Amino acid sequence: MPVNYATPAADQLLPVAGVRLGVAEAEIRKKNRRDLTLVALDGGCTVAGVFTQNRFCAAPVQLCRNHLATGKEIRALVINTGIANAGTGEPGRQTAQASCEAVAALLGIAADQVLPFSTGVILEPLPVDRLKAGLPAAKADLKADNWHAAAHAIMTTDTVAKAASRRITVGGKTITVSGISKGAGMIKPNMATMLGFVATDAGIAQSLLDKLVKEAADASFNCITVDGDTSTNDSFVMIATGQSGAAFASEADAGWDEVRAAIVAVAVELAQAIVRDGEGATKFITIAVQGGKTVEECRQVGYAIGHSPLVKTAFFASDPNLGRILAAVGYAGIADLDVDGVKVWLDDVLVAENGGRAAAYQEAEGARVMAQAEITVRVDLGRGNAQASVFTCDFSYDYVKINADYRS
Amino acid sequence: MPVNYATPAADQLLPVAGVRLGVAEAEIRKKNRRDLTLVALDGGCTVAGVFTQNRFCAAPVQLCRNHLATGKEIRALVINTGIANAGTGEPGRQTAQASCEAVAALLGIAADQVLPFSTGVILEPLPVDRLKAGLPAAKADLKADNWHAAAHAIMTTDTVAKAASRRITVGGKTITVSGISKGAGMIKPNMATMLGFVATDAGIAQSLLDKLVKEAADASFNCITVDGDTSTNDSFVMIATGQSGAAFASEADAGWDEVRAAIVAVAVELAQAIVRDGEGATKFITIAVQGGKTVEECRQVGYAIGHSPLVKTAFFASDPNLGRILAAVGYAGIADLDVDGVKVWLDDVLVAENGGRAAAYQEAEGARVMAQAEITVRVDLGRGNAQASVFTCDFSYDYVKINADYRS
Repeated sequence: MPVNYATPAADQLLPVAGVRLGVAEAEIRKKNRRDLTLVALDGGCTVAGVFTQNRFCAAPVQLCRNHLATGKEIRALVINTGIANAGTGEPGRQTAQASCEAVAALLGIAADQVLPFSTGVILEPLPVDRLKAGLPAAKADLKADNWHAAAHAIMTTDTVAKAASRRITVGGKTITVSGISKGAGMIKPNMATMLGFVATDAGIAQSLLDKLVKEAADASFNCITVDGDTSTNDSFVMIATGQSGAAFASEADAGWDEVRAAIVAVAVELAQAIVRDGEGATKFITIAVQGGKTVEECRQVGYAIGHSPLVKTAFFASDPNLGRILAAVGYAGIADLDVDGVKVWLDDVLVAENGGRAAAYQEAEGARVMAQAEITVRVDLGRGNAQASVFTCDFSYDYVKINADYRS
Repeated sequence: MPVNYATPAADQLLPVAGVRLGVAEAEIRKKNRRDLTLVALDGGCTVAGVFTQNRFCAAPVQLCRNHLATGKEIRALVINTGIANAGTGEPGRQTAQASCEAVAALLGIAADQVLPFSTGVILEPLPVDRLKAGLPAAKADLKADNWHAAAHAIMTTDTVAKAASRRITVGGKTITVSGISKGAGMIKPNMATMLGFVATDAGIAQSLLDKLVKEAADASFNCITVDGDTSTNDSFVMIATGQSGAAFASEADAGWDEVRAAIVAVAVELAQAIVRDGEGATKFITIAVQGGKTVEECRQVGYAIGHSPLVKTAFFASDPNLGRILAAVGYAGIADLDVDGVKVWLDDVLVAENGGRAAAYQEAEGARVMAQAEITVRVDLGRGNAQASVFTCDFSYDYVKINADYRS
């Protein structure tokens, strides 16, 4: 049961001109479920992506990087769930390549114009013949108003499908942004992977899109943590079709700020949905760190708090256990931090200052905030003007249950 | 219930000439429990310590550092449980100072010859008057064969007391090493702190002891993790009384290697006892990383595995979930790691090589190892000769229960 999240209805997910999606049941790992998604892009799109930093990155991630690096026009994405095709060595690269070749033959394009994505069990071989056999059905299903089905078809152990759309008008032109994501931990048990796909019908020059995908990831998928584990398959891809007629070549272009904001908003909504559906999550926690010398040190503090099992179990217990939060700030790795200058709030309640508990703090006030389903921990480091936020969930019995029982 | 650990009997804990210990019930936080320990050292001892890197370090830690820095002879240690005196700002420093002054008055020494230690609840003021009122009883209890009582009196939520002794003969002289420790997480819920105290009747020159305490900590207390949290109060102190008649001034001295080994062995036993008694622990896991370019990168990999909630829940479930271990190796932060050169074993079973599952691996073999109460995960990075080990425990329902329920 996700924290304050529900999948939008199919008609709330807006088609993006130039993008068609089709799904199929390919029996990659289980019968009777949609597990194969094909995304066909018209000519003229720009595409950019960011991928996992994990050295054990999956075979499809390696191919995505290679295909994007060619500079050729990307015309299709193929996504399977069930098997991650990670930790599969050279045979895994061959099956990923074979998937791209099959899509290319079906659509009359080249194999390096296809980006492949896999999510599911690590270390198992991808049954590429079943994937290939499912492709014609996915092609037959291709349509522009199919985001809702695609959001469902990329799920693994997610409890809800994740999708978002925005429509804005800029300079008289209507621009649409739609996206889908999946994942319920930074890495799922051994159903690895966070995936995110966002498309817009704005035209965005390649260099601008390359920059935007990194900025949007930093504001969204790179700010979330469920358990601190980083998947072998994490991928976030952005597509700009240009079919709205509005085109952007530089950040100075009129309307860019609005378009950028709409795209980042969709990415943030998709990323936060992953945390809201985090394994065993009962609460959604925003850790907002301000007053740092650098964004990096603010993120360090945010992640120290967000990764601490002690802090996360305290949230689960609705226990305003300030010592755990202060301890995490203290060990976050800022060597010259003056703790007497640190302030901490739970929502609007000042709980710590001058190196200890705030003089006016009443535990009942902290307990009131901790009982909420959504909580903001605000930390002021008192040493600069940088800020950063991290989004996480609490740590419950169900997290252990889900992850201890997963393969049994 | 700790994993394969039992407190040694009182007569297995050997007196160290020059060290006397006394305990008392001071009602620091609760009635009817021993919560105050006084350690009196004869003149002529050398003392060295390493302390938490947490910037929110507790008031007593600050005083320990200051008193050791004076170069004056340390003559007493005072340890209370119940209240950590951390996150208490300037008033906390005053109560720690007052504790030292009370001990000094009682023993006829100077306040800066006393090292204070506190462990327990963070953010609460230390009731220094009760501590002072308890000191005469602790003084009256001072005796050399009191290590067992002291091991119990420094516990907080530990389920067993932790202590160890070694006796060796070097150059015709008998040398004794005894130590005690406490802690069941790197930080207890808000009963913070790992404490370790090791004493020997060998004479060890200050510069040599300063080096040894760091080496011993690196081989013991710095290699363990229960939950990755670092306490505000962690302290490890080593005392050399010289009363055995054997004295060491440099690493080249005859017999030093044996003395060093005995002292490090006691430190390792004390540190591992903390993991064996880790919150909710059902298994003791050694993560032995070899083939690294540097010790540091081996430790990085060891901690990435040892901190991963996904790996730790898999150990709890006795699930040979290799993907989680490989993923942790991959995200440990070695940017140029060639994953095809990595090998992983569970005990003697080769489970991964060439970027994926080992060809000969049978899941039944992995499952057999995972069912054990003690498991070694061996990782060969295949890129150098450095090695390092990390000791940890699994992650169970009880961890969440203990930490979610602690304050209620």
